[in-house]
Amino acid sequence: MSSPLSGVRVLDLSQMLAGPFGSMILADLGAEVIKIERPGEGDIGRGMPPHYFHGESVYFLSVNRNKKSLTLDLKSQEGMDIFYRLVKVSDVVFDNFRPGVVEKLRIDYESLQKITPRIITCSVSGYGQTGPFKDRPAFDLIIQARGGIMSYTGEPGRMPVRMGAPMGDLTGGVYAAHGVMAALYHREKTGQGQRIDISLLDSQLSLQIYRGLYYLYAGEVAQPVGSGHVSANPIRAFKTQTFDIVIDANTDKFFQELCAGMDRKELASDPRFITRADRLKNKEALYAILEEVFLQKTGEEWLELLEGRLPAGPINTVDMALSDPQVLARNMVVETTHRSGEKMKLLGSPIKMSPAGEPRFTPPPALGEHTDQILKDLLDFSSQEIRDLREKGVI
Amino acid sequence: MSSPLSGVRVLDLSQMLAGPFGSMILADLGAEVIKIERPGEGDIGRGMPPHYFHGESVYFLSVNRNKKSLTLDLKSQEGMDIFYRLVKVSDVVFDNFRPGVVEKLRIDYESLQKITPRIITCSVSGYGQTGPFKDRPAFDLIIQARGGIMSYTGEPGRMPVRMGAPMGDLTGGVYAAHGVMAALYHREKTGQGQRIDISLLDSQLSLQIYRGLYYLYAGEVAQPVGSGHVSANPIRAFKTQTFDIVIDANTDKFFQELCAGMDRKELASDPRFITRADRLKNKEALYAILEEVFLQKTGEEWLELLEGRLPAGPINTVDMALSDPQVLARNMVVETTHRSGEKMKLLGSPIKMSPAGEPRFTPPPALGEHTDQILKDLLDFSSQEIRDLREKGVI
Repeated sequence: MSSPLSGVRVLDLSQMLAGPFGSMILADLGAEVIKIERPGEGDIGRGMPPHYFHGESVYFLSVNRNKKSLTLDLKSQEGMDIFYRLVKVSDVVFDNFRPGVVEKLRIDYESLQKITPRIITCSVSGYGQTGPFKDRPAFDLIIQARGGIMSYTGEPGRMPVRMGAPMGDLTGGVYAAHGVMAALYHREKTGQGQRIDISLLDSQLSLQIYRGLYYLYAGEVAQPVGSGHVSANPIRAFKTQTFDIVIDANTDKFFQELCAGMDRKELASDPRFITRADRLKNKEALYAILEEVFLQKTGEEWLELLEGRLPAGPINTVDMALSDPQVLARNMVVETTHRSGEKMKLLGSPIKMSPAGEPRFTPPPALGEHTDQILKDLLDFSSQEIRDLREKGVI
Repeated sequence: MSSPLSGVRVLDLSQMLAGPFGSMILADLGAEVIKIERPGEGDIGRGMPPHYFHGESVYFLSVNRNKKSLTLDLKSQEGMDIFYRLVKVSDVVFDNFRPGVVEKLRIDYESLQKITPRIITCSVSGYGQTGPFKDRPAFDLIIQARGGIMSYTGEPGRMPVRMGAPMGDLTGGVYAAHGVMAALYHREKTGQGQRIDISLLDSQLSLQIYRGLYYLYAGEVAQPVGSGHVSANPIRAFKTQTFDIVIDANTDKFFQELCAGMDRKELASDPRFITRADRLKNKEALYAILEEVFLQKTGEEWLELLEGRLPAGPINTVDMALSDPQVLARNMVVETTHRSGEKMKLLGSPIKMSPAGEPRFTPPPALGEHTDQILKDLLDFSSQEIRDLREKGVI
């Protein structure tokens, strides 16, 4: 049993969320991901408020498990020399600098390829390395908004809202990991390196999928629908006496099951609600009835009555989701040991495979935790040389 | 120049959205993806209302470009024989059946491995192949709700809403593509096949990221914040005289730029708004002022004034997003030629790399469009044999 990406070494210059989420996917799959961090300060995510564990930002902890940390001052000549030597024994250089920075630092694909023709570089940026807006700063909310999906997230007639998960950032990381893996496979076949250019905005656009084509082919501009569905009913969230629930009872079969499960069989033969078209036409009348009925029992009681009959489930709050029996059965909450000796919990990996087996989980690294080990093992530095570099502030 | 996954052959049994989105990522990267579809009917996504192009569902078109289609009745012995022969010359078998179906059809990993030890299988399902809920049906809304992110998507004090993009489905496809690529790389190194088990619910959980850990480490249960931010201000959407815009002016620097750009410099020295803490404490007062100010100009005017100074941008509706200059400059809207001869538009791929270059885009296949070609080229069937199979309804 070995991890799928075992033997792959990634030099990871990325910080905060989008980049580190992408390199975490690679790390969870077994790549050796070495964070290259500025001496003293490191990944700016390390300081992110508001929650800390043993002095480390929980935000940082969430996306940096399974990685190593090496401090290196890329603005010093000695730091650059070490970086180039590391590139020679690595497969991937991964960054989320603004466009132009890697060229300025002379760690762009063209420069690194001269040292190691097989190198793969992957840059994640807000708008990509090309195009009229490439130099603009981009944060998650701006990307969600410009990408178009925010415009149809929310309630009809009200202001749009953001997707609760930071999809503007995360999606870029996801595609970066795709790019790296495709390039690694390709390199095995051809020996060729690759330069990957991932934009958060492109990534967001790719999520438009059929909504984008509905506009291109039919001129339909998607509008917010709350928890509902523009052309199917009832698919929606409802309040109960306890937690909120969702149902998807659009088909005749599921609608009949819903009525049976609610002990309101007469609704299924009500002329207003017999066909899908009827239910869509008389949406508000159906909503009014269902809203009232669902308020008569608890969420637990409704799910007990409905879950066997049709697609239905709780709107889990975070605490509920993280203790959901299915979530726990699938190891989506895992444990590792922090270097303080204390146990720490992390989210699991959704990529389950065998014979490779469940990923290992090592705790997120302290700043520079692996500097000495990496310099000794990979580049044959002596303890004295390492002490000198540390004194000069290079590491 | 060759595509990164060129030479990889995928037998794709998946339908609708989650599976086809994942196999589309592989196809865009150059894998030969062969949809295996039921004769006569095919992928049920082919019939999805409400929009059609030359009789084909636009929903279907959106996730099936770059694929081939072969019809095959897996319930007939001859169909199964052909499938097994195809497995011998393929790398990946990809499905999104409910758990148990591949075993029943005898196309599960264990069965296929006997034929082709190097085979990689990937199953995408609502809840995964294991756990107490594995047999339940799951649709996008149910997954968004159970996964927890919906609970904090929406406005404070109102019912949660769904993320506008079908993230419950899409995220499963995304991780399936990761799993397949990692397994392909691993197989190059070790010769070993792999069984991949992707659950939409696991995938959703992985997007909880720091919000999940905020609960595990600090007991914080994420709440809906509209377009705003729980611990930073002003980061939000605002109405203008035309379209809505978003700004991210939380830091002192960006807040001062915002005030300057609005020609309201006095706000930056207003004792209620000087520090980040002040602005968070006096959020409502600041909102009231900004809401009024933003209503005094158009969206175009505000972005002209603000975009150079701080992260800001439009809330693009779908039509705006698909004509955004950066989106067009990055080839996120591409064109190919439908077999009718008519030009057709598709969304581009966010995974840009060189020297591999931009992906090719071939139109989504007609049902069984490549049956003859594949049977002849890969399995040496004669025209007569193919006619016989067609007559018997096997293909």
